[in-house]
Amino acid sequence: MNQSLNKLLATFNDTLMASIEASKLNTDLEQSMLYSLEAGGKRVRPLLLLATLNMLQPNQYEKGMQTAVALEMIHTYSLIHDDLPAMDNDDLRRGKPTNHKVYGEWLAILAGDALLTKAFECVSNDHSLTAETRVALISSLSDASGHRGMVGGQTLDMQSESLDVPLSVLEQIHLHKTGALIRFAVHAATIIANTNENEQQQLLQFANHLGIIFQIKDDLLDQYGTTEALGKQTGSDDANNKSTYVTLLGRAEAETILARHVADAEEILAVLSQKYNTTDLDYLLKLFYQRQN
Amino acid sequence: MNQSLNKLLATFNDTLMASIEASKLNTDLEQSMLYSLEAGGKRVRPLLLLATLNMLQPNQYEKGMQTAVALEMIHTYSLIHDDLPAMDNDDLRRGKPTNHKVYGEWLAILAGDALLTKAFECVSNDHSLTAETRVALISSLSDASGHRGMVGGQTLDMQSESLDVPLSVLEQIHLHKTGALIRFAVHAATIIANTNENEQQQLLQFANHLGIIFQIKDDLLDQYGTTEALGKQTGSDDANNKSTYVTLLGRAEAETILARHVADAEEILAVLSQKYNTTDLDYLLKLFYQRQN
Repeated sequence: MNQSLNKLLATFNDTLMASIEASKLNTDLEQSMLYSLEAGGKRVRPLLLLATLNMLQPNQYEKGMQTAVALEMIHTYSLIHDDLPAMDNDDLRRGKPTNHKVYGEWLAILAGDALLTKAFECVSNDHSLTAETRVALISSLSDASGHRGMVGGQTLDMQSESLDVPLSVLEQIHLHKTGALIRFAVHAATIIANTNENEQQQLLQFANHLGIIFQIKDDLLDQYGTTEALGKQTGSDDANNKSTYVTLLGRAEAETILARHVADAEEILAVLSQKYNTTDLDYLLKLFYQRQN
Repeated sequence: MNQSLNKLLATFNDTLMASIEASKLNTDLEQSMLYSLEAGGKRVRPLLLLATLNMLQPNQYEKGMQTAVALEMIHTYSLIHDDLPAMDNDDLRRGKPTNHKVYGEWLAILAGDALLTKAFECVSNDHSLTAETRVALISSLSDASGHRGMVGGQTLDMQSESLDVPLSVLEQIHLHKTGALIRFAVHAATIIANTNENEQQQLLQFANHLGIIFQIKDDLLDQYGTTEALGKQTGSDDANNKSTYVTLLGRAEAETILARHVADAEEILAVLSQKYNTTDLDYLLKLFYQRQN
């Protein structure tokens, strides 16, 4: 990772870990929350938020830090709940035992609930932003992560297990399940930077491409990656009878679509680079489609 | 219920049911959310919020409606998750099958997640309030319902199963598990009405008594109520080896403590009645300690 993103990442990780203060009520709950926050995620969503904000308003990324923390908390809670026996029943996540494997099922459910709740607390208490900005961020974040967003997508995903879904449904699933939070990362940066409508639309379009790139890459890695590099079981889509870009289209066609979205995303960044320094977003885009885990 | 509270209740129920708009993404998820919202709760938390606000600012209760909806959503999600097999494993709630019995475990988990998320969306989008007020409400609501509040209390409660906990721990559990949201109901009204510090403290003290009254009554009903009146299995505390006010203190002592908190709460209302019309809060207090379900 380049120096600029590394700096954002280091500051972010420090802020994230400091965000769960001990309540002295029950240390197990907070340990369980921190376990999954610490479990070595790539932090692509917070980095995307901070890098976009840093591009729009150089050196003002601190203003996005609490929102980035909130975003990672929501992503993390969704992984904890998705891994539960009643959902995907996964034992490994990022090379470590999943939350319920370590803390038991009921504490994993509650840790997820607490992380989701904490996310909104972080934004509501962020005194570096005006109340208007905080309210706009919370409105966007709750929409992106709720029944019309991420949770809706996860529901569609679970309903589609063992079904041969058409490509259009698969796109609906991922537009919501993974796309909504990636889109929020960029949307949040434009809210904080008060970006004009035109540039906001370009950036949201960029985020849409990123979301699809992320998912096709995910499907390719699940099929052709290794458990070692991935830190979780490969072939789990097959085991759960899930339709993916790869099972629906085959490897070659999936890679062709991936390349098309990469080209479209690069084109948007080329336009933005006439006004802004897009180095970090160029780098993140590469990270999305070249990642091996 | 008296006419004034009935009016609040009717308006509230209409607003609550209209709050989950169909997303066209997956109707099952929204049906599952609505099933538990509709399942005949007594709405004591939203009524407490609206009645307190109506007392502080007569005929301004509409300003509290979205926050009351949010509060009931959080209460409802907590019941869905508490009833799960990995938690209390309850089949009946308010006389109806629990959410996971009807919709299955994974959809119950997701419906809970979506209701929790939606709660913050409702407050953030409430244009009858200033952004500052909305942010203050979200900050208070997330604190009350998260790891230092309700979820923390639920964790303590689960950890205490099959243990002989002392009264001090029992009080900690209920101060958080049930007390935090009851306290929030009153706190929210004082935030919206911009109540002075002194009266806010009196009202929060009143809420503390209400929280304890609610819990002791709950324990008494679980032990001595009937499944028919209660709409859920009685004796579940015994079955789960839970310490309660009744198992720790016996029926007579539990009823004595209950009466003491009722007297303290009445005293606070008597003071407030010099300035405000406390009829509805008097009525709600009675509802809390005389309820049979």
